[in-house]
Amino acid sequence: MSKPEKGSSLYRLRHSAAHVLAQAIMRLFRDVKLAIGPVTEYGFFYDLTTEAPITESDLPRIEEEMRNIIAQKYSISGRRVAKAEALEIYKNNQFKTDIINRIEDEEVSIYSQGEFFDLCHGNHTDTTGAVKFFKLMGVSGSYWKGAKENVQLQRISGVCFETESQLKEHLEFLELAKKNDHRVLGKDLNLFFFSEHSPGMVFFKPKGTIVFNLLVDLVRKIQTKFGFVEIKSPLVLKEDMWHTSGHYENYKENMFFSNAGDEKFCIRPMNCPCAVLTFKNDFYSYNNLPLRMAEFGLVHRYELSGALHGLSRVRSFTQDDAHTFCTEDQIESEVIRDMELAKEIYSYFKFKSVKYLISTKPEKSIGDDASWDLATNALKNALEKLGLPFEVCEGEGAFYGPKIELQIKDFIGRWWTCATVQIDFFLPQRFELEYVDADQSRKAPIMIHRAILGSIERFFSIILEDYQGWLPFWLAPVQFSILTISEKQKDFATSLCSQMQELGLRPEVDASSETISSKIRKSVGQKIPFALVIGAKEVENNVVTIRLPDGKQIQNVGLERLEALRSIRASSELISLFS
Amino acid sequence: MSKPEKGSSLYRLRHSAAHVLAQAIMRLFRDVKLAIGPVTEYGFFYDLTTEAPITESDLPRIEEEMRNIIAQKYSISGRRVAKAEALEIYKNNQFKTDIINRIEDEEVSIYSQGEFFDLCHGNHTDTTGAVKFFKLMGVSGSYWKGAKENVQLQRISGVCFETESQLKEHLEFLELAKKNDHRVLGKDLNLFFFSEHSPGMVFFKPKGTIVFNLLVDLVRKIQTKFGFVEIKSPLVLKEDMWHTSGHYENYKENMFFSNAGDEKFCIRPMNCPCAVLTFKNDFYSYNNLPLRMAEFGLVHRYELSGALHGLSRVRSFTQDDAHTFCTEDQIESEVIRDMELAKEIYSYFKFKSVKYLISTKPEKSIGDDASWDLATNALKNALEKLGLPFEVCEGEGAFYGPKIELQIKDFIGRWWTCATVQIDFFLPQRFELEYVDADQSRKAPIMIHRAILGSIERFFSIILEDYQGWLPFWLAPVQFSILTISEKQKDFATSLCSQMQELGLRPEVDASSETISSKIRKSVGQKIPFALVIGAKEVENNVVTIRLPDGKQIQNVGLERLEALRSIRASSELISLFS
Repeated sequence: MSKPEKGSSLYRLRHSAAHVLAQAIMRLFRDVKLAIGPVTEYGFFYDLTTEAPITESDLPRIEEEMRNIIAQKYSISGRRVAKAEALEIYKNNQFKTDIINRIEDEEVSIYSQGEFFDLCHGNHTDTTGAVKFFKLMGVSGSYWKGAKENVQLQRISGVCFETESQLKEHLEFLELAKKNDHRVLGKDLNLFFFSEHSPGMVFFKPKGTIVFNLLVDLVRKIQTKFGFVEIKSPLVLKEDMWHTSGHYENYKENMFFSNAGDEKFCIRPMNCPCAVLTFKNDFYSYNNLPLRMAEFGLVHRYELSGALHGLSRVRSFTQDDAHTFCTEDQIESEVIRDMELAKEIYSYFKFKSVKYLISTKPEKSIGDDASWDLATNALKNALEKLGLPFEVCEGEGAFYGPKIELQIKDFIGRWWTCATVQIDFFLPQRFELEYVDADQSRKAPIMIHRAILGSIERFFSIILEDYQGWLPFWLAPVQFSILTISEKQKDFATSLCSQMQELGLRPEVDASSETISSKIRKSVGQKIPFALVIGAKEVENNVVTIRLPDGKQIQNVGLERLEALRSIRASSELISLFS
Repeated sequence: MSKPEKGSSLYRLRHSAAHVLAQAIMRLFRDVKLAIGPVTEYGFFYDLTTEAPITESDLPRIEEEMRNIIAQKYSISGRRVAKAEALEIYKNNQFKTDIINRIEDEEVSIYSQGEFFDLCHGNHTDTTGAVKFFKLMGVSGSYWKGAKENVQLQRISGVCFETESQLKEHLEFLELAKKNDHRVLGKDLNLFFFSEHSPGMVFFKPKGTIVFNLLVDLVRKIQTKFGFVEIKSPLVLKEDMWHTSGHYENYKENMFFSNAGDEKFCIRPMNCPCAVLTFKNDFYSYNNLPLRMAEFGLVHRYELSGALHGLSRVRSFTQDDAHTFCTEDQIESEVIRDMELAKEIYSYFKFKSVKYLISTKPEKSIGDDASWDLATNALKNALEKLGLPFEVCEGEGAFYGPKIELQIKDFIGRWWTCATVQIDFFLPQRFELEYVDADQSRKAPIMIHRAILGSIERFFSIILEDYQGWLPFWLAPVQFSILTISEKQKDFATSLCSQMQELGLRPEVDASSETISSKIRKSVGQKIPFALVIGAKEVENNVVTIRLPDGKQIQNVGLERLEALRSIRASSELISLFS
């Protein structure tokens, strides 16, 4: 979804809705100064100031007044007026005055409906009666022209659609997104929490830690197959080093400084200098390249507490980072390798689609044009050879090299950048890295930074929302709940649990005295893929009944068959195995 | 080994050696002021000052002069003199003056040999001729009475034995220990390094990271079986919290402080507060206890740079930490569980012996006597039930509870404390933790801190030295070197390598153009358990020849048999499998 095109019927509808909103507010509040009221992806908003602030509790009566205005079916019409006249009309409104002064024409247009008029470029429905299916969504703060140093405004937002079913569908979708907010799921499923003692730093509870470790294991297993080696390096390095690396100069607002004794340190905000120091510790010839050095690197970056958001915006996180040191000739094949690595890792998830973006040389950059061309072409060639279509973001690369970003789309349709492959001409020079080439000359290697999941914490939040909490079987912290019907099955359940644990499965016994239906409800509430229901019959026949979340059952599964579950990835595989 | 008893023949011998050393130095250097010259575990030293400092290069001529003195067979005899006379004799020696003033007798004794005399309590050989088998070992700095604020002295140390073979054995042993110093092995085997940019913090290279991760995996696997769950919590917490925990008050000299924006933090020196906060985040009844919460927790502790020593004394390290929250009644069974866990984990190594120490209530402590008795008895009962003999260190417990320490003995005979099980009455109170008991009353849980490997970094150094670099098969970063005899076997070697990797084995190909004997030498030098030698015959018959480090060979091993290697722990198992 994106904003409707100017002039389209949906655009006209939402633009009128914004005017109806402004009209209602002017009727209900004192000293209203309108700023701007544009159309958005799902509706509209109006930024304005009033004498007394508008709160969420005002929204119902604003909506009611809007309905009155709509019922009146005011005709909406525009007229052209000279700038001088417009400036006179808006002499008490600094925002409109500013807008008028920036218009190059001699005349501006003003649109009216009933007693209401607004400085406006047009594109409206004929009457206010056209606005039917809308809802106000909230009040938030904004700034004039979006700049913090300017006057603060209030933004009243709404959604608006052409049909009732579209509106209903959208509201249901929002409800779903809210329920599947990873912060809500994290609490409900006992995965993680935050503490005032360490804002923006995650406390993973046992179940969350299982998922975190499984994500690390997955990347470790696959990247090893792709020829990466792993290092483990310090998090705290002397302040001097961060001057050498350029981080102090360019990134200090986001760094955690540290001191102990008389010494000054920084906690690392990025892992790259440690990979560089590890490279520098050994001697390399061209024969040793490419050297693919991975690290599950914990970084700390200071964010204002207002900007923190669950696992997606934190102050410390682990990157599945890697730095490949290679020759210029090897860039293309290494990028192909990284893309194939990403493909294999992403195959464990069910993302709807993946988008590839290449960012090229920005205005301010280091390195000569020939190097940039070579590296940028290597990125393009790699994607072309793999048959992956890409968009080019001209001039949007970092100053030290071009990059590929992989964006994945979640179930709400949001795009997230997870994997990045970044060429770097800069750090190897800054740290004077070198290898000995075939002709015995000393050369600086090229460095390729890459991450596939990106921030493991953020990736966790994305998949949690994407799966609506129903993590795939291989990643579910609890894969089976073993539920006893009565006290008598407790021993059988406990022994079954141990047997399954020995197979490397993750079961959990609920042998409490609650009813089986309550136990099932809990198991489904915890989004556990399968419940194994154990009654007298199961014990007698030494079998289990597998209950799926939708209520379907697979009966008489012999215990010896459970071993087959070790290698399945998705719940559907179990179903086809045993049905 | 410990210091020889006063009056024993070995004591007399080394005491005379110290005098011979002092006599030689007084002959060779100007303005010598003797301080003290005691007997040590393997020899003797003398602390003194001279006009020009003594260096290592002076040792040979000091030794030569000592041999002259020994050849002279001076008789050694003592006489008693009045304190006043002694003070007159030593009026230019502040150290001896100090010693004389602290003697309570009216008289002191002075021992002479040739022109040399020394203030001394006696216990010498009859003549200097008795000192035969000695060697000077080094020069180091020391302080008068060991206190930094006092005058700095030079310490000349030596070893001395009763027989030539004892001396030889000791020197060989030192040579071995030096060669197997983990810092030397770490460099030679490419396991880790240190950087001036982060003193005392380890950079694990790829091979070291494999070992580190395998140690983590081992503990994770076994502790999961023992019912521990794992958490993952922040490293950086607000300074306030460290006041609450008591760390600020008691530990601040060793803490890394941090700041970002306007906020003040500390990097955690211990993991316990995070376990406490995790406990506090949920509600617990007695039914939920014991709760065994493990974390591979990275801690940072500031040490002076002079105190740093390889992996054994670092500024940041990972503990295989766990905190069990339980009732008083559960202490004993939880301690038994911890001991069994330790036993199972240690079974993967080959420590010569394990010693158990219980430290009891110190003078300054919190908690009532009844709690101390209960907890201390629980520790004793646990060890008794397991049939493990223990020593009691009376009054050596921490102020907040008694503990068990497990010490392991390495091949040099040194004892290392690795595992600790510490009862804690304090933190649960300090953080107001509680659970609801069966009678609905709210009670503070008992907290048991335990670590099995302790610091994983330090444990790594211990086993590296203990195995003299030959890590056991399951832990060896490279388990097999695949060595080609000629260029023609390269493809076979590469394909063999992939097949073995897919089995989860860790092979490495050396297909360079060097000779096979040079490749074997390298493989043995890198302490790789097995070399697979691949020549024309092996390729033809699709087999490998396994070469052991001692040169023995196992021929004609079919590739299909390699799968059996997945489950072996020690190299000897491979030998019995295939021989």
